[in-house]
Amino acid sequence: MASIFTRIIQGEIPCYKVAEDDKYFAFLDINPVAKGHTLVIPKVEIDNLFDLNDDTLAGLTLFAKQIARKIQDYTQCKKVAMVVLGLEVPHAHIHLIPMNNEADVDFKREKLKLSEEEFKAIAQAISL
Amino acid sequence: MASIFTRIIQGEIPCYKVAEDDKYFAFLDINPVAKGHTLVIPKVEIDNLFDLNDDTLAGLTLFAKQIARKIQDYTQCKKVAMVVLGLEVPHAHIHLIPMNNEADVDFKREKLKLSEEEFKAIAQAISL
Repeated sequence: MASIFTRIIQGEIPCYKVAEDDKYFAFLDINPVAKGHTLVIPKVEIDNLFDLNDDTLAGLTLFAKQIARKIQDYTQCKKVAMVVLGLEVPHAHIHLIPMNNEADVDFKREKLKLSEEEFKAIAQAISL
Repeated sequence: MASIFTRIIQGEIPCYKVAEDDKYFAFLDINPVAKGHTLVIPKVEIDNLFDLNDDTLAGLTLFAKQIARKIQDYTQCKKVAMVVLGLEVPHAHIHLIPMNNEADVDFKREKLKLSEEEFKAIAQAISL
């Protein structure tokens, strides 16, 4: 069965898309820990990031870099954190999270509740 | 002034080295959140990961991938987390952390106390 992320890529599940090319896709995390929290994924459905072949992994990182810079410009955060955990969804994904102190990157904290308009505005602002 | 990581690379500060080539360096985190917690850095002293040029960033990720696989084999963890925060040391660094559940990646938890022999054994087991 296709992962939830593959279904998002295919448009079966809606998302706030940030960027897409032939190999990669980025969209806002629907349960963000900070405004601008984005997920960056390869289109190929591989569970473990480190099982991606070298070209795909290197390209994913460079795709994420472009988006991280947009997040940085938009949020004026100190840095954009890059986090790969991935035990919940079996499709490799990078979290990009704007950060002003290291405690900002806490997946256990209460998630932000944003309106559809807020999500759309953020996605548009950081899109490639 | 050189960052603490540059001083580690230069041998001025001791470390448990895991791997080194002409552009990258990896060593055990001295305050690990899990056995096998490793830091992977570029030799070039640049604060923000996303300010690395594309070649250096892509190469860093692929260097980290090789070490992540060694950590996975050694610890038999479910996955190896990759985390870049970087507000504390102004020299870009990737944390690789063996993980069996997502709560394992918690920088606020009490750090492990390992003996010199334990650190040496881990570094040797996961070295490239």
